[in-house]
Amino acid sequence: MDHAMRVMGTVAVASALLLAPVPARAAAPGTRAAIEEANARFSELLAKGDAAGLAALYAAEAQAFPPNSDIVAGAPAIQKLWQGVIDAGIKAAKLTTVDVTAAGELASESGRYEMSGADGTVVDRGKYVVVWKRVGGRWKILRDIWNTSLPAPAK
Amino acid sequence: MDHAMRVMGTVAVASALLLAPVPARAAAPGTRAAIEEANARFSELLAKGDAAGLAALYAAEAQAFPPNSDIVAGAPAIQKLWQGVIDAGIKAAKLTTVDVTAAGELASESGRYEMSGADGTVVDRGKYVVVWKRVGGRWKILRDIWNTSLPAPAK
Repeated sequence: MDHAMRVMGTVAVASALLLAPVPARAAAPGTRAAIEEANARFSELLAKGDAAGLAALYAAEAQAFPPNSDIVAGAPAIQKLWQGVIDAGIKAAKLTTVDVTAAGELASESGRYEMSGADGTVVDRGKYVVVWKRVGGRWKILRDIWNTSLPAPAK
Repeated sequence: MDHAMRVMGTVAVASALLLAPVPARAAAPGTRAAIEEANARFSELLAKGDAAGLAALYAAEAQAFPPNSDIVAGAPAIQKLWQGVIDAGIKAAKLTTVDVTAAGELASESGRYEMSGADGTVVDRGKYVVVWKRVGGRWKILRDIWNTSLPAPAK
């Protein structure tokens, strides 16, 4: 096989790979680690009461989905949302990643959370899905939705 | 430029594309249409009370996140979840897609829902994030989480 044929073989393989869809699969260890690191940063910023820092973890076009509210769209509105949570006395968020599935620059994380007040009392315990988008090499929050796992209050 | 050089140029371009990350962006019209069609099917199956049909819209490794419950993992458990909703008298789900962002075989949908009983009364109104995964050419639900937009009950 001469050089040109080898090169053309490489082109054929490269073309097949280009056409192959990018599968959604368990995230590479580096992706999961980067997301867990961002979550650790989230908890640190919440403990400091830094709503602007929290908002900076979100993509510009992010949407958050707080219970008992409509969709909160965009980083400035999301900053207000977290300021409200901080003002309500939430001091700690424990975030535990269950799974990260990724394809290209998009990743879906599922996990469990615990929110606590200043005295350490757990005020809510639930689960979340965060969709992450890699922007300029950094994973940013694109969608952030959660709900409680505590029983519904009696009617 | 001789043939081999042109081929090598193609290899260089193809290699650069192979190394290029797959960006997360507004889904192609076909992806959004396929997801909206799956949502229409979801509403039809719920109206018929077909929990097995609903479960078949989910990937084998799917997770659902109902409020006031822990994570519900796997299609059989998700079938039980929807059977419970059907048994509780829910007859209609109106699903309105707000946004679909996709990368490769993974797509994130956000939207709003309305759940109604047999007499047409809206019993819940809220929002959701569904993460879709393309499996064998079909978009299946990988993660399904929602919460109410109605005010919290007075304590």
